[in-house]
Amino acid sequence: MWMAELAARSGLSVATIKYYLREGLLPPGEAAGATRARYDVTHVRRLRLIRALTEVAGLSLDTVRQVLEGIDSAGSWHQAVGSAHTRLAGSGDDGAGPTAASLARVDAMLARQGWELAPDHPNARVLARALDVLDGLDHPASDTLLDLYAAAMRPLAAHEVLAVRRVGSDRPGGSDEPPVEASVEAAVIGTLLQEPLLLAIRRIAQENISRELDEDEARS
Amino acid sequence: MWMAELAARSGLSVATIKYYLREGLLPPGEAAGATRARYDVTHVRRLRLIRALTEVAGLSLDTVRQVLEGIDSAGSWHQAVGSAHTRLAGSGDDGAGPTAASLARVDAMLARQGWELAPDHPNARVLARALDVLDGLDHPASDTLLDLYAAAMRPLAAHEVLAVRRVGSDRPGGSDEPPVEASVEAAVIGTLLQEPLLLAIRRIAQENISRELDEDEARS
Repeated sequence: MWMAELAARSGLSVATIKYYLREGLLPPGEAAGATRARYDVTHVRRLRLIRALTEVAGLSLDTVRQVLEGIDSAGSWHQAVGSAHTRLAGSGDDGAGPTAASLARVDAMLARQGWELAPDHPNARVLARALDVLDGLDHPASDTLLDLYAAAMRPLAAHEVLAVRRVGSDRPGGSDEPPVEASVEAAVIGTLLQEPLLLAIRRIAQENISRELDEDEARS
Repeated sequence: MWMAELAARSGLSVATIKYYLREGLLPPGEAAGATRARYDVTHVRRLRLIRALTEVAGLSLDTVRQVLEGIDSAGSWHQAVGSAHTRLAGSGDDGAGPTAASLARVDAMLARQGWELAPDHPNARVLARALDVLDGLDHPASDTLLDLYAAAMRPLAAHEVLAVRRVGSDRPGGSDEPPVEASVEAAVIGTLLQEPLLLAIRRIAQENISRELDEDEARS
């Protein structure tokens, strides 16, 4: 397809697509003469992914670039997904270091759950910083709440991880994409872009439970 | 306390605090002469809340203003929390309308869960939009996933809603803050600022389950 169709199918302007090409976020098309190039469905998918990462997940272009490099340079499934995860976690790190007390609480939670993380893992730092912020607002999160969150996330995470692995192994043979790239893309989408889903459902659950409690009080 | 101490205790610069005073985000202090004012602990808390809403939750100052107006004008517990929730949901609305198909899927999920939402409720629109985005990326979210999310959020939401209500009813008598304001502040913090906690724990769970699956494969 030509540039005009690529713009129409991705929902982005030609100027934006040319900017992504110059910045190396989008691989070049196949040259068709001195000034024209042909693009294919992998370009459409890559543009939709960039758009989702910036508009929905709110990532900066620099972070998007790092996530895409993680996808493109992936040597193995585990390494690729691990590297994408580490980059995504870093994007939530606001620069301020967590307190030792909060890092110790995260370690204790991991031990209670039978989980492990490499020392100084970005996700441990992000979680510890979130604890510090709530402490600073005089609304500390209890260990009970952390354990409730962990218990609730365990079956979800198992479902999500298995879904991502299936993308890597069941890819139809005619696909242009190597299984690793498809898997990492699925992991990134599953981690980042299903977050709004989970958070919206949490708010809907809160509202419904709040209304039920009001009705219970009115009856009693 | 004077302005210098307010700045030190809130972690914000004097210039930023004066900007929030001019914009009406922070109520004025008690006048002490022509050019000085005294501030108290409610000012410190309000500034910490503004900082958390902007820096941690990533809200614009306009949205922060709407959330704070919801807290300040609250007539009753239920009305105040409901209005804050609706404003927060609106902040996740990117302007693009959800498709009718996704809105129908949200309605079907609500029916399966025995939940209700007012027609055209912002949270239903946010959820439907998130479904559309995943469809556009060729990674549609299944009804199974939505029901798993709902089942996981149900006990968490019950815990969170009860915690917020306790803040409103068990407030110590010596507090300067009316119970409604404290409750709504707790609801806002619980909804928005505990989100990073939940999401970080979800990622940690995904990583640990992924590693366990690798170890299982290596053994078999």
